[in-house]
Order: sequence, then structure tokens, then C-alpha cells
Amino acid sequence: MPVTSINGREMPPSPIRKLVPFAEKAKKEGTKIYHLNIGQPDIETPDTMLNAIHNFPLKVVEYSHSAGLESYRKKLTGYYKRFGIELDYTEIIITTGGSEAIEIAMMSCMDPGDEILIPEPFYANYNGFSAKANVKVIPIRSTIESGFALPPISEFEKFITPKTKAIMICNPSNPTGYLYSKEELESLKEIVKKHDLWLFSDEVYREFCYDGKEYTSVMHLTGIENNVVLLDSISKRYSACGARIGALISHNKELMATALKFAQARLSPPTFGQVAAEAAIDTPDSYFAKVKAEYVSRRDFVVKALNEMEGVFCPKPSGAFYCIARLPIDNADKFCQWLLEDFSLEKETVMLAPATGFYSRPDMGTDEVRIAYVLNLDDLKRAMNCLSEALLVYPGRVVKKVAAAATN
Amino acid sequence: MPVTSINGREMPPSPIRKLVPFAEKAKKEGTKIYHLNIGQPDIETPDTMLNAIHNFPLKVVEYSHSAGLESYRKKLTGYYKRFGIELDYTEIIITTGGSEAIEIAMMSCMDPGDEILIPEPFYANYNGFSAKANVKVIPIRSTIESGFALPPISEFEKFITPKTKAIMICNPSNPTGYLYSKEELESLKEIVKKHDLWLFSDEVYREFCYDGKEYTSVMHLTGIENNVVLLDSISKRYSACGARIGALISHNKELMATALKFAQARLSPPTFGQVAAEAAIDTPDSYFAKVKAEYVSRRDFVVKALNEMEGVFCPKPSGAFYCIARLPIDNADKFCQWLLEDFSLEKETVMLAPATGFYSRPDMGTDEVRIAYVLNLDDLKRAMNCLSEALLVYPGRVVKKVAAAATN
Repeated sequence: MPVTSINGREMPPSPIRKLVPFAEKAKKEGTKIYHLNIGQPDIETPDTMLNAIHNFPLKVVEYSHSAGLESYRKKLTGYYKRFGIELDYTEIIITTGGSEAIEIAMMSCMDPGDEILIPEPFYANYNGFSAKANVKVIPIRSTIESGFALPPISEFEKFITPKTKAIMICNPSNPTGYLYSKEELESLKEIVKKHDLWLFSDEVYREFCYDGKEYTSVMHLTGIENNVVLLDSISKRYSACGARIGALISHNKELMATALKFAQARLSPPTFGQVAAEAAIDTPDSYFAKVKAEYVSRRDFVVKALNEMEGVFCPKPSGAFYCIARLPIDNADKFCQWLLEDFSLEKETVMLAPATGFYSRPDMGTDEVRIAYVLNLDDLKRAMNCLSEALLVYPGRVVKKVAAAATN
Repeated sequence: MPVTSINGREMPPSPIRKLVPFAEKAKKEGTKIYHLNIGQPDIETPDTMLNAIHNFPLKVVEYSHSAGLESYRKKLTGYYKRFGIELDYTEIIITTGGSEAIEIAMMSCMDPGDEILIPEPFYANYNGFSAKANVKVIPIRSTIESGFALPPISEFEKFITPKTKAIMICNPSNPTGYLYSKEELESLKEIVKKHDLWLFSDEVYREFCYDGKEYTSVMHLTGIENNVVLLDSISKRYSACGARIGALISHNKELMATALKFAQARLSPPTFGQVAAEAAIDTPDSYFAKVKAEYVSRRDFVVKALNEMEGVFCPKPSGAFYCIARLPIDNADKFCQWLLEDFSLEKETVMLAPATGFYSRPDMGTDEVRIAYVLNLDDLKRAMNCLSEALLVYPGRVVKKVAAAATN
């Protein structure tokens, strides 16, 4: 029997999805699970988008241009303009989800062995894309005590080597919910400029900034236009994760020409999703206002509920729909599996993502979990109830008295 | 300004798509172009599929399971059963087009530097996937004189090294249209068994086998069940290239577990396309009978027309919807570009794919083109007229008397 690849065998399973078999088993045994482990909102996809699918006009479901439908790219320039981002449609390549945008950006900009600096904790799949591109991730640690603010630039400087080719951020951040300020981005600009690095920014949660705080895009930074690569997706914006439509955007013409070759190699992004996404640009502001208000109330409820549990600490995030909480537990992986295998409250339990998957070293984030507040308030209440009860009876409960006193 | 990756810069543009800018220019100048360069059929997508899209039932366009919707995978086992392929649904991973199935198969089975033997000429994008996986393609030459039959197994044996991990075929073949016989596949089985190799088979054209010839799948071969990987796509089957739905299929459990990790890293295949593809399984046989009859008449017309042109030789293929023709020209790339830039007949011209892109060495296939007979008979007649006229006036016309005498 032939053997599988070393890369494939050594690749860690997705921390968000590796507990799925335990969840499937629990469901088969009749347990209801509140899924706070994955950024799959219960928010309805806007009618603009669903109507376009119901009225799909083509008789032949053709390939599109490898860079995406021209009409969609042209209309997208209007969408970005609303956020103060001026683009020509040729500066946009439509991708199969944000995932492919990241993958193509890495492959187009970085050679095997090159290094990319990423504030940690970071979206776990960045590891998978880096592994595919044979790129080395150099994590720059941010802390729960600071609410996961950008680490000082001096920390980035420490890790710059001749192999450093890029810095990558996610803003607002998955998994932390942190929203970078204009000042933080300006400080990143200086180091990008100084070392002539690529600056990749995953900004798929731009619609979800709270408390009147302002969204600043890397596309707003002047003087590094050829260094900046914007990575985008409609998955969260329109609650359309399954459409698999994203975008790679840059003013750098050489990059766009190189990226197009990778795009051609996979022929085209999905046509159905593009037709729907093009129509979705007309989604009224009222849709977003309603969704945003909903997320704010969910966040407020979840963060308050968490901080009221003994030994739990959760900074209040200003964006996206995630938060990271520190729990009084021995091991987040064990705890999250235990929630599915051995715990239930009135035949219900909650599924969380162990934060270990968002850190680069196995000994980091061991008492943290990521919570996606993607369910309605009633469900969130029951889910927080489950978690609260579970923490009381979990055999691996550990209350770190010093840390708790310092941060709660 | 930061520089793009070496891999990216050195990657050849898709031979099928690199002439697109010349075509766009010609169109803007008012020239009508017959696209025989790309496997984008004009056949209508079946109603089964379009109706499912028009009635798309979900309110939230969710991620699916990373391996694809369970209901779709289960129903697909029935589709394969009709072709004598027995599967459990867990032996199927739904991919974003056949492209992703090939990419995941390579990454899951092969390490950087490993070698894969592929009969040449082969589908050009295999080069792109190999480059991404850092795998070395070792071409095994098949010839136009034999109609591109499988090269003798002794030719494969010659190139087996300790680095050889896989053999890949496309059956029926893009770009040659050749349909491998049961005997040819049995001979491949022996070498796969002897060296314990992976056998990848791209069988996306199984519905298109002509002249009563039988389709044999690698899944029919007994004794190498753990070596065989079937790569599939609905693009051609239902004329739904833009749906971007494919599949990676194997009885090898270790491979499927490894492939699932790569599938998880990109979250999920497109939901719209999967819903449509699931419904498409109910497409009546009458649809395929009609489509097949249409392709047979197109093939018969095109092959006859080509062989009637002076100095042209085109073997008659038994499958898919492509043929490769040898033309009396100096250079296929130049000729195909010239057709778009400098030639027109009554404001019309034809776009072909230079065969050079389907060979591994730049000096091979220089007088061959791939023709996709994906247009209706009227359009094909006008397209063949254009080609016939163009060959008479092309400044680089070269009639190789000896070769022509030997093969026409």
C-alpha cells in the first residue's frame, strides 16, 4: 500500500473542525449542541443575494474569467469606495473564498523558506496556507491582558531577518475580535516601509466594528501602496460562508499579474456565488445596521456572562464576532472534548474552539477558548448556562488564583 | 517595492488562457471569435440543475461539511454505481472543481521532489498543480501517429526511480480525446502493483465515449484498490464548468483522512454548486443521449474537415470533446496569436490552443493545436472555414512533405 505524504501526515487537523467527530457522536446520542466553535452565523443571507440565485439567468453555467466576472469586479469598486478605498477593477481578483485569496497571495509573494510575521493568536488556517506555500510563520505574541492589542513594533523588529518577506494581520481580528486603531496601523506602516515588506491584511469583518470605533484599512495607508495586499471575503459580510467568494486586492501590478497566473491554474471562481455576490452589493444599509445591533447585544451578553463566571476572564472586543476567554481549566483541548463526550445539561451542551489551535506553540493558549457569538440570544443564554455549569463540575478545573486576581 | 515569488514569476501562464488578451483586443475591434481553445461547451446545463438553483431552499448560505454535503455524497454513490463503481460515501470528498481534487491528491500523496509519470501530451494545468505541490512531472511520450494510445509499459519502466510515487492518466483524455482500452488499463495495473505506486485517474469525460467503445475506470481494476485515486468533476458532465464542483475518491482510508485535513484547511466546497450537483444526479439518460449524439456529429465534422485541409493530420478520437491536429505551420504559438491579431475572414476568426502547452518541452507539439469541438455545427463550419483559409495565407506555412506523406 503506498504511503501518504509527510506534509499531509504531519499537518495538524483544523482546531475548529477536529472535534467534529465527537460532536457528531453526541448529536446521534440525542444531545443538542450549541455551536460557538465556528464562525458560521445564524443570520439570514440578505434577499438581494438569495433573489439573484432564485433568478439565476444563465442557461449554461459557464466558467467565468479567471479573475472573476468583469461586471462583478467593476461593481465591487463601488463597494470599496464607500470605505474610502479607491480601486480600478483590474486591481481585484475574485477568489474561491478568502482562503484562496490568502493562499494565492502567499504563493505569489513568498518563496519556500521565507518568513511571515503574524501577531499571535491568529486564525488557525493561516498555518495551513503557510504549510502549503512552504512559508514559515513567525508569531509575534499579543496578550489577553491587553485585549490582544498590536504588540509593540520593537517586538516585530526583533524577529526581522533577511528571510522576512511579509507581515500579516487580521483586522478586525479572528480569533480575538480586536480592532486595530489608526495609530497601530501607522506604526505597522513604518516597519513595512523600512524593510520593504509585503503587508497582508485580512479584513473580512470590516462591517462589524462596534462602539463607534473606526475601521482603518491597510488600503488607507499612504506611501506603501505597492506593499499592501487586501484579502477579503463575502462570507461574513452577507452571512454567506458557503458561497465561497473572496478577493485578492492590490495596487501592485506585478503582484496582480503573478496572482492571475495562479488564478488561471484553477480556471475560475464559482459562477453561482459570483452572480449572487454581485447582486449583494445592493444590500441596503438597514440590513447591516440590524445585524450589527444584533451582534453588539450578543457580544455584550456573552462577555458579561463569561466575566461573571468564577475564574473566567474575557476582554471585550470591538469587532468581528469572536472573543477569547481564559477559563479555570487544565487544558482547553481536553475541556472542549469533555464538553462533547462527557457533559450535558438537560440534554444540551456547547461546542467551543480550544485556543491552542490559534497559537504556534502547544503550551500556549492551553486555558483559553475562542467563542463565536453567532447564535441568537436565547441560544447564547442556554449555551452560557451550559458552560457555567460545566466549569463547576469539570474534573480538570484549576483556579489560578494569582492570575485571576491580577486580571479580573 | 517588494518582489514577487520566484515560483510565481517563473510559472508559465496557462496555454489555454494566455492568448486571452489578444482575443479581448480582437473582440473590441469588432471581430467575432469562435472559441475552440477552451473546454467550455455551449450545451445547456440540464434543467434538473438549474431548477435546483432557482429553488435554492436555504435561508442561510452556510459552509457545508469540509468533505461536502452528506446528502450529496450519499446520492453520488448511486451515480457511480451505474458505472460499476461501488463506494461508501465516506470514500468521497467533494472538491472545488476537478482542479482542487488533483491538487489535494498530489499534496496528500507526494512529497516535494517526488516524481509523477504522465503520458504526454497532457492537460496543461497538471503542470500548475505539480508546481504548487513541488512535484516533478516525468512525461511519457505518446504520439499523434498512434492516435495518442498509451505508450508501451516498457517506456514507463525506463523512467521509474526511487522518487517515482505516482502515475497519472486522463481517460477519456483531455487534450487528445483518446479513450484507454481495458487492456491498456490492465497493463498500467501491473506496473502500479509492481512498484506500489499511486494511480491517479482524471475521468471527468466518462459520459463522452463514442463508437460503442467501453469506458473502463481505474476503479474497476482489482488488486490495487488502495493505490487508485479517482479525480472527478461535474463541469463537463452537466455543462456546468462554473459550478466548480469536483470530487476526490479512493478506497484508501489513510489517504482519505489525510485529504480531509487539506479539505478542512479551505473550509468547504461551494454550497450553491453542491445543491445543484445533488439535483443533477437525477438528470435523465435522454439528456446524455442527445448531448452525446451532438458531440459525435461535431467530432465527425471537425475531424473530416481537418483531414481534408492540405498538410493537416488529425486522428479520430473516441472520447471527450477534443482532438489534436498537426498543422502545416512553423510554430503553433505564433500561429494561434496571428489568428487573433492579423487574420480575419468576413470579420471572423478562430481561437485554438497551441499544443506546446500540453507538452513538457518547448520543442514539442510546435506544429500541433488542440481543438475543443464545443460549438454547434454551424459555428464549427464557419470556424473550420476560417482555419482552412488562414492556413493558406499564414506567412509561417510549412508543409513537411515527408511527414505528411507518412501519415495522411
